[in-house]
Amino acid sequence: MREAPETKSPERVALPKPKLTTGKSVAEALRLRRTQREISDEKLSAQLLSDILFAACGVNRPHGPFGGHGITAASASNSQEIDVYVALDNGTFLFDPSRHELVPVLHEDVRRLALGPRQPPVSPNAPVQLVFVVDLDKLEHTSGFEEPGLHDPEVQKSYYYVDTGIIASNVYLFAASQGLACWFHNCDREHLAKKLGLGKNERVLFAQTVGYPA
Amino acid sequence: MREAPETKSPERVALPKPKLTTGKSVAEALRLRRTQREISDEKLSAQLLSDILFAACGVNRPHGPFGGHGITAASASNSQEIDVYVALDNGTFLFDPSRHELVPVLHEDVRRLALGPRQPPVSPNAPVQLVFVVDLDKLEHTSGFEEPGLHDPEVQKSYYYVDTGIIASNVYLFAASQGLACWFHNCDREHLAKKLGLGKNERVLFAQTVGYPA
Repeated sequence: MREAPETKSPERVALPKPKLTTGKSVAEALRLRRTQREISDEKLSAQLLSDILFAACGVNRPHGPFGGHGITAASASNSQEIDVYVALDNGTFLFDPSRHELVPVLHEDVRRLALGPRQPPVSPNAPVQLVFVVDLDKLEHTSGFEEPGLHDPEVQKSYYYVDTGIIASNVYLFAASQGLACWFHNCDREHLAKKLGLGKNERVLFAQTVGYPA
Repeated sequence: MREAPETKSPERVALPKPKLTTGKSVAEALRLRRTQREISDEKLSAQLLSDILFAACGVNRPHGPFGGHGITAASASNSQEIDVYVALDNGTFLFDPSRHELVPVLHEDVRRLALGPRQPPVSPNAPVQLVFVVDLDKLEHTSGFEEPGLHDPEVQKSYYYVDTGIIASNVYLFAASQGLACWFHNCDREHLAKKLGLGKNERVLFAQTVGYPA
């Protein structure tokens, strides 16, 4: 896990405050939810990107379970062990929910790696790829309830994949509520891990494309 | 996987048609989403149970990816490999999304097993426990796209846990939209598997309590 600097770094990219003022009901979004792989190259506004990241795993209350803040996505012991990286055409960033900011990671467009070598080559220029990375240290050193098996690699796996799905579903339903297209998929884990400079306790899991329907 | 009878069995419990007519927006639900363990014993209406199951993994379109119908929850290759069992005070049922019906499995209240022996003993009489069970045969014999590693047990794990999280998140957001409380948690896998009479390619994964806030 990258250390968050103590003071606001000029390199960080502030996101607009999440608005989420418009959009359909949960009921309507559930009726509309589907995987849509044909996605336009059109960019999303900073506001929409901010809202998508809030939907994914943004801070929705200052006091969550076990002391930390609460986020939109449930996680084992509130460990919040899934980091969401954001691959855009102008670079790759780590989403920091606590400040609702993007931390620059790479001045490079890695969206094609997020799509993965064995995926159908659909919509490679879709504007946003969310890359899900688990930080095992956050499970190991949780300040929350000691869930059974929290230090057992097999059990950890069950937690971090479930927690990935929870974030992905938030994004799916938010996309459905806004008329956006989205697609959760495999990715090129090995190359992404190198590009992102991940530590030994971090693993690339999956990715999710978001954009306007083509 | 239990065989669905060819003709409608009188034993099956029809659920009211999903209504989901009221409720908050996705935006509001995301702001309200949280784990709420203190849950009232008050029963839910058949309509509300129907709506919760639709939210979880109900059929939302006749033509989904790869030929089958589409459901509210994304799954690897649209395998729909997660079965949702419903543990109520008057028995235990398998949710059949294709008919939107409950198939009786057990005339027994197993809600305490769904809560699990090592979980904090909170709200043991909450009205609904959803139990997530993977049917590996549905991944093995998918009619969908051959996702990489679909027959590799490790890769299967990544798919079915993610797909569990996707269903769980649908339920979390639907609950938030309706003022319901919900909690995703571990369960007594071994005893539940016996009680439910699972086959050798089925595994109990997790459970989720739903009800009115206490």
